[in-house]
Amino acid sequence: MEEVLKNINGVKDLKKLKIKEKKKLAEELREKILDIVSKNGGHLASNLGVVELTIALHSVFNTPRDSIIWDVGHQTYVHKILTGRKNQMDTLRKFNGIAGFPKTSESEFDCFNTGHSSTSISVALGMARANKLDDRKNKVIAVIGDGALTGGMAQEALNDAGSSNSDITVILNDNEMSISKNVGGMTYFLSKLRTKRFYTRTNSRVKRLFLRIPKVGKSIVKAAQRMKRSIKQMFIPKMYYEDIGFTYLGPVDGHDIEKLESVLRTSKLIDGPVLIHVITKKGKGYKIAEENPDKFHSTSSFDIQTGKLKKEKKDDYSKIFGRKLVELAKKDEKIVAVSAAMIDGTGLKEFKKQFPERTFDVGIAEQHALGMAAGMAKKGYKPVVPIYSSFYQRAYDQVIHDICIQNLPVVMCVDRAGIVGNDGETHQGLFDMAFFSLIPNITIMAPKNFEELEKMLEFAINLNSPVVIRYPRGGEGETKFEKCEDIKLGRAEIIKEGEDLTIVAIGKMVERAIEVSEILKEQDIDCEVINARFLKPLDSYTIERSIRKTKNVITIEDGILRGGLGTSVIELINECKIDGVHAKSYGYDDSFVQHGSVDELEKLHGLDAKSIALSIQISRFMSNEIL
Amino acid sequence: MEEVLKNINGVKDLKKLKIKEKKKLAEELREKILDIVSKNGGHLASNLGVVELTIALHSVFNTPRDSIIWDVGHQTYVHKILTGRKNQMDTLRKFNGIAGFPKTSESEFDCFNTGHSSTSISVALGMARANKLDDRKNKVIAVIGDGALTGGMAQEALNDAGSSNSDITVILNDNEMSISKNVGGMTYFLSKLRTKRFYTRTNSRVKRLFLRIPKVGKSIVKAAQRMKRSIKQMFIPKMYYEDIGFTYLGPVDGHDIEKLESVLRTSKLIDGPVLIHVITKKGKGYKIAEENPDKFHSTSSFDIQTGKLKKEKKDDYSKIFGRKLVELAKKDEKIVAVSAAMIDGTGLKEFKKQFPERTFDVGIAEQHALGMAAGMAKKGYKPVVPIYSSFYQRAYDQVIHDICIQNLPVVMCVDRAGIVGNDGETHQGLFDMAFFSLIPNITIMAPKNFEELEKMLEFAINLNSPVVIRYPRGGEGETKFEKCEDIKLGRAEIIKEGEDLTIVAIGKMVERAIEVSEILKEQDIDCEVINARFLKPLDSYTIERSIRKTKNVITIEDGILRGGLGTSVIELINECKIDGVHAKSYGYDDSFVQHGSVDELEKLHGLDAKSIALSIQISRFMSNEIL
Repeated sequence: MEEVLKNINGVKDLKKLKIKEKKKLAEELREKILDIVSKNGGHLASNLGVVELTIALHSVFNTPRDSIIWDVGHQTYVHKILTGRKNQMDTLRKFNGIAGFPKTSESEFDCFNTGHSSTSISVALGMARANKLDDRKNKVIAVIGDGALTGGMAQEALNDAGSSNSDITVILNDNEMSISKNVGGMTYFLSKLRTKRFYTRTNSRVKRLFLRIPKVGKSIVKAAQRMKRSIKQMFIPKMYYEDIGFTYLGPVDGHDIEKLESVLRTSKLIDGPVLIHVITKKGKGYKIAEENPDKFHSTSSFDIQTGKLKKEKKDDYSKIFGRKLVELAKKDEKIVAVSAAMIDGTGLKEFKKQFPERTFDVGIAEQHALGMAAGMAKKGYKPVVPIYSSFYQRAYDQVIHDICIQNLPVVMCVDRAGIVGNDGETHQGLFDMAFFSLIPNITIMAPKNFEELEKMLEFAINLNSPVVIRYPRGGEGETKFEKCEDIKLGRAEIIKEGEDLTIVAIGKMVERAIEVSEILKEQDIDCEVINARFLKPLDSYTIERSIRKTKNVITIEDGILRGGLGTSVIELINECKIDGVHAKSYGYDDSFVQHGSVDELEKLHGLDAKSIALSIQISRFMSNEIL
Repeated sequence: MEEVLKNINGVKDLKKLKIKEKKKLAEELREKILDIVSKNGGHLASNLGVVELTIALHSVFNTPRDSIIWDVGHQTYVHKILTGRKNQMDTLRKFNGIAGFPKTSESEFDCFNTGHSSTSISVALGMARANKLDDRKNKVIAVIGDGALTGGMAQEALNDAGSSNSDITVILNDNEMSISKNVGGMTYFLSKLRTKRFYTRTNSRVKRLFLRIPKVGKSIVKAAQRMKRSIKQMFIPKMYYEDIGFTYLGPVDGHDIEKLESVLRTSKLIDGPVLIHVITKKGKGYKIAEENPDKFHSTSSFDIQTGKLKKEKKDDYSKIFGRKLVELAKKDEKIVAVSAAMIDGTGLKEFKKQFPERTFDVGIAEQHALGMAAGMAKKGYKPVVPIYSSFYQRAYDQVIHDICIQNLPVVMCVDRAGIVGNDGETHQGLFDMAFFSLIPNITIMAPKNFEELEKMLEFAINLNSPVVIRYPRGGEGETKFEKCEDIKLGRAEIIKEGEDLTIVAIGKMVERAIEVSEILKEQDIDCEVINARFLKPLDSYTIERSIRKTKNVITIEDGILRGGLGTSVIELINECKIDGVHAKSYGYDDSFVQHGSVDELEKLHGLDAKSIALSIQISRFMSNEIL
């Protein structure tokens, strides 16, 4: 057969294809995705798993007038290829290129930005309600994985959607359960029978008839419904969804385009909320990914033949964290680890292996993770909870209400803090320092390198109060630091003394401070470099003393400016009434940060060493002072 | 019979009682609670509903070694009376008195602080896991209402608990469903039978036997289990809990102490997670509350005979908000209201009545509420979402991820912002200005009085981007303002011009600024009073000009200092390089704020007009300058 994909320039072309051609298209799409992700990195397994589902969705529904909300959003590569972005896909996840997640600014087919888990049903329900108020008949479809369903937001939405009578279709992309031929076929048959249009109609007609019978009518209907439910219970384990108000279709083989299209077409005939249970296989069609779906969930560039990463994975902060935690846990049996479905990503694999009974993976459930940790802490344990910075936003109330009010010793490890790069807006860890720092009783640290992370972790575990350690994605910088003093609460570390300009930096930006100081040295500006270590409590003594000496201070941090290190230092200057000080903060200003490499994004925001040094030289030139 | 309560000084005394005496005790407890709440105000209906349940719990379990976690925590008055605080209950909710919620600092029987909804299962599971690791056999019980179960955190916890094999008992306090004698009795009988110890044992023995049969054994067990489930489905609608791994007991009449004790005793024999379904009636025993459970959910002091409030309810911010929203919605059909189970509390009652199809009460589900609102906004609607300040903490990620990244026009009305008073730490709205202000794309306002709230609401609805309006609990102050200029984006309002000291205040604290300026006038300090109106974007122009004139500035705000108005003004001074300025911020420092009246708490934190004025006078005395 001739190549199919080359003639697909939009969903119109897709709709014309025969089923055979669509099957061929699926093959070609898999090849294309493999090709792109092996070069650019990205989410592989989940995209290979939804090739047929995406084809079927765009074949049956009238996109973009019908809206598809992709939960988590990292499985939209096929969707992007089919909706007019085929030829730009080589820029996937690159600076100014196609995003790795749906983006409304990119295409009208991306009807809502997603990135975090478990949001799609809420958003879809909102859209369905808007359609209803506007008397629009367009469909709204949420595509959500079984993992994301454990998230509380999705459960809240299911509960509301089920009782809403809204025209919302939830596609449960179930890639955990492997479907046996028999069960699948049987239930598919059953559900097809059950949801045929006439059947649905008859059913409610019968119901209405019975209801007219005085007194007992209602009981008969109820009894009949219960009986029906009981029978169905024997065949379909997911009865639950019907109980809460959904019409349940499936399970259906998510790699069979014909069956998918059929069930999707059926769903269009049903009024009210529908849930379609689709069984897919992560990594489908690429054997190496099928066997290692976790490894190929999110990957950097790799060799297609062998599956091996092109760049050997170096040590990163997560790994160092995990290794140190194992070491500490051997000596302290009160240490437990809590994870929200991110054992691998946060470096807990070895810990889990060595201490399975002290490892608690609670699923995608950040709120519960922190609440559960609070309970363990109250009973004398020392829970360590590594979660990515942008996902800690999900547990904000629990950190305040369940942990900090009672001053409980939970160690919150904020992984992927600061700019993460190619995942873009939804994943940048910009806000954690600011939103944590305003909570009473909390201590906040960030290490300059691996060694300092290890020391901070040990310190945190013995602090006996709520503590945050934030560290970035990836590895430490290339700077070799001469020393790493022991950690003392609220004590900064003076890396280099100087007379003209104080540079206060925290975390990975300490290295940047040194680079800046080296450039400025050539301009005869003698910098004092301070590693703040603690955002809270800030080492007011050390920083004040330095500022009184130099009368010039800049701060450098890997986060949003408002409420961060810069704010702390400026408030310190005001509080100590140090006159005639020039102060400037470097960090991310009041905007979201797009995708791209970390280097590109730092340059864009003027946070590379050269840009910072240059801006200082310009201030000097303008004012004849240093800042 | 003799009075029983007078001899109850702790749970030991309770355990000695006969069932008849316990019934008498229940009556006396109801009287006592009515007496206290009618005087001090507080949560009435929920406490009257759990009298028998609390008696049964402390009778059967070995508290405080067994831990009871009270979800939401406002239903713990009986618990407090029975656990040694009987004679202090007249100080309930008063400054330095007994708290209206469980407080570990108050009694060892309060094993965890609660206040927000849906946290108890997470906390209990954490404690149960700690017990297991420590090989302690103590029980952990979470008491949670059916409303709180809609909260995502509770769903996340149920999912984890069900598969955990932990010894955790969840008591579902179901006060929605009214139980008919027949159904209740029947199911109670059934579940009692089913959970008798020998039955449980036999059952698993039989299962083990079958499983030994090669090949088909597993299928037989599965089929049997399914059949059993099907049968049970007919009798017990809450089958769901067994599906996710709980042993389900009940439903049981929550006002029958004997039956309650029996089912609780049964539950102690069962290993693994147990859910006990208890049916109670809100307001039980006080007819006026039984008929108006909503009105008596949380009340101020009232007359027991008539149920009428002692102080007639004056207009409050919530009511003004609701009234204005109705007015605006009549002219703009794109306005919709979204509530998280707080239609009454947030003033939406009239809106719901007039626009039922445009009102969406999603249950206790703040995350979903904001996600759903985002979906509606994306489709052209203008969702207005009033939620209490401390509960907005639950939706922080949704505000960032689902609303602000896409700059969607959702109007977030932050009710109960600032100090709320008697509810204490968990309910103070201290953090909203700070945590919202660091999010890009957001606008933040606070009105000085009712009139300004109305103008701000109209402005917000037409802004077409994410916007926060925060306003306090209760009514406006007594100050009559001469004018209320129209709202312009980022423009402050100069209330009074002056030469010596700039006072910048926001929201309810604008009145305080005027009071301070009047006191200082007597000391010949001429104040310029600025109503900031916008925390973000701040009116830099107006404030800078004033500061350049006076060289002295104080800020006053009803929230945590870090990241609030004070921070904004100090950063402005630094940015504009205004030399020789003295600046001081008044607000809440880095600590949680206990319960008490708003006046008492403001005095405690030096935020009443006299304290502020005095602190300025002292500065002046010390330094010979104004600040």
